[in-house]
Amino acid sequence: ALAACTAAVDKVAAGGAGGKVEWTLASSFPKNLDTIFGAADVFAKRVAELSNGNFIINVKAAGEIVPGPEVLNAVQNKTVQIGHTASYYFFGKDATFAFDTAVPFGMTSRQHTAWMLHGGGMELMRDFFKQYNVVNFLGGNTGTQMGGWYKKEIKTVEDLKGLKLRIGGFAGKVMAKMGVVPQQIPGGEIYTALEKGTIDGAEWVGPYDDEKLGFYKVAPNYYYPGWWEGGASLSFYVNQEEYAKLSDNYKAIIAAASMEAHTDMQAKYDAKNPGALANLINNGAKLQAFPKEVMEAAFKATKEVFAEEAASNANFKKILDNWLAFRHNEAQWFGLAEKSYSEFMTTNPWKPGA
Amino acid sequence: ALAACTAAVDKVAAGGAGGKVEWTLASSFPKNLDTIFGAADVFAKRVAELSNGNFIINVKAAGEIVPGPEVLNAVQNKTVQIGHTASYYFFGKDATFAFDTAVPFGMTSRQHTAWMLHGGGMELMRDFFKQYNVVNFLGGNTGTQMGGWYKKEIKTVEDLKGLKLRIGGFAGKVMAKMGVVPQQIPGGEIYTALEKGTIDGAEWVGPYDDEKLGFYKVAPNYYYPGWWEGGASLSFYVNQEEYAKLSDNYKAIIAAASMEAHTDMQAKYDAKNPGALANLINNGAKLQAFPKEVMEAAFKATKEVFAEEAASNANFKKILDNWLAFRHNEAQWFGLAEKSYSEFMTTNPWKPGA
Repeated sequence: ALAACTAAVDKVAAGGAGGKVEWTLASSFPKNLDTIFGAADVFAKRVAELSNGNFIINVKAAGEIVPGPEVLNAVQNKTVQIGHTASYYFFGKDATFAFDTAVPFGMTSRQHTAWMLHGGGMELMRDFFKQYNVVNFLGGNTGTQMGGWYKKEIKTVEDLKGLKLRIGGFAGKVMAKMGVVPQQIPGGEIYTALEKGTIDGAEWVGPYDDEKLGFYKVAPNYYYPGWWEGGASLSFYVNQEEYAKLSDNYKAIIAAASMEAHTDMQAKYDAKNPGALANLINNGAKLQAFPKEVMEAAFKATKEVFAEEAASNANFKKILDNWLAFRHNEAQWFGLAEKSYSEFMTTNPWKPGA
Repeated sequence: ALAACTAAVDKVAAGGAGGKVEWTLASSFPKNLDTIFGAADVFAKRVAELSNGNFIINVKAAGEIVPGPEVLNAVQNKTVQIGHTASYYFFGKDATFAFDTAVPFGMTSRQHTAWMLHGGGMELMRDFFKQYNVVNFLGGNTGTQMGGWYKKEIKTVEDLKGLKLRIGGFAGKVMAKMGVVPQQIPGGEIYTALEKGTIDGAEWVGPYDDEKLGFYKVAPNYYYPGWWEGGASLSFYVNQEEYAKLSDNYKAIIAAASMEAHTDMQAKYDAKNPGALANLINNGAKLQAFPKEVMEAAFKATKEVFAEEAASNANFKKILDNWLAFRHNEAQWFGLAEKSYSEFMTTNPWKPGA
């Protein structure tokens, strides 16, 4: 009777819920990118709470288990059960990955989330990720990024010719079409490279993260917008077989907790960037908008790179058609109420006490 | 032994998790507002999944338990355990409620979420809601709304004088300062009132909801932006004592599921509005931007109403100071990368196939 009773208790404890599960999460990010890295902590904490402490996810920073760029491999090969990364890091394997994060002149944070959840984006990306043994979930967004730090002003497209700029992936390919010489340099080495003049400029994220690295001291021209990252979306990658083993309850927990981390990360950036921007300006950063001709040349180069990729990459082409139609409609709609409202807000300041 | 065993099973079934709980949710919305009403369904479905079917929330539309405007009372008095509503409906009790949803020239969807989650907004609103026996959670956002449908064009501030406009709450008070005669009319009666000429215009939500009511047939001038709803945030209200009874696990479930419903609703609107807008334009809606002088007069009137309210309402004043500082910083930050990027997207269309 005791045995039977214990079995019954075990069954109910598992409760269809899934019993004890312990996973390791490999992040592609270092802890000092606390907003991005922190999204994995927010996620893991909620997973534990939602499972009454039965589903534990141990979050490891880049380099603790595998280097940041190895997260896809690590999840694919089951070195870890789950990862947190930016899919465009894997652009070299297949440009299609970039649709999951950001492509030049792509969608903004809200538009990307809308595409993923209600525009068919998630289905398309899940289908693509199958070949990598991954089930993907939304995992945060940075919002529209800044366009980086430059030692000299960029006044014309000519000024880009021969410019050694720290930038990678899809954006690097577009920049190369405009004459830029893209450089791949890890975050921790950018400052020194700028200081020594090994590079002429570097893009990072936005005010909150950029302030910590101190670029304003050595390359004070701070350009916007980062047209290659209108909104960079992060992702959680779950190994397909590990996912299949989960109970429906634990699958729901992954879905809900990742959605919360997704929204929370964007909110943190939106709350933290304004103060950091003010500090940067006080410290001598020179805010500059990219000239219209540079934006137009970049847009033209982007369309060329897209056409080339679509011609030779069926995965890319398949997602592009859906993505482009959705993006077009969003751009038109956001150009009305949202755009005119935000413009009025910006140009008609409402200061506390005024 | 059987009794002991059953008790053990019961305890584990509850699992620290919370056992069987069944709640009724009163929505302030009719089912035909499927995006807003639907957020409560998304929430309830996820709560059930996260609790393995043990925490059930039965969603009831406006009028099924109480009329839409009675949801606050119903939660406060425990007629229901939970409600889904727009706090600005209770503006008449205290203007402070409006900070939880939208105030004229208030924050956009992302800015409001950032304020609530990482700007101190949630703490301030929770403190305010205590006196109503309510614990509030985020419950969706519409994005910047349209400015409504008008029989005649609005070319100057003069054109607003004596205009009978279906609009309520805070916005109605601001409109009244500009000479508008605000009218309170339920959604289902607006069309007839416009058709008969009882009113000259009406504001509703945005293309997706507006299309269903057919206003374009009787008041074709479709203005933007809805400066009184730069982003209207919905809320879940949980009765304080009912909330206190929940296990930590069920509290976490409420928090995670409400955050997911919050993001999902915005994504739905963002995905559905563009197609509806195209339909409306095809059907004869005349898109119009509010003239600059009307926007400026509305902004001036808003600041006057805010000053009057702050002078006589300590609850309002307390939140206003924090809110205004946050809003100011957001408006400046969003005026850079986000604004310039969105502008470029809108003015440089990227059409599928082009």
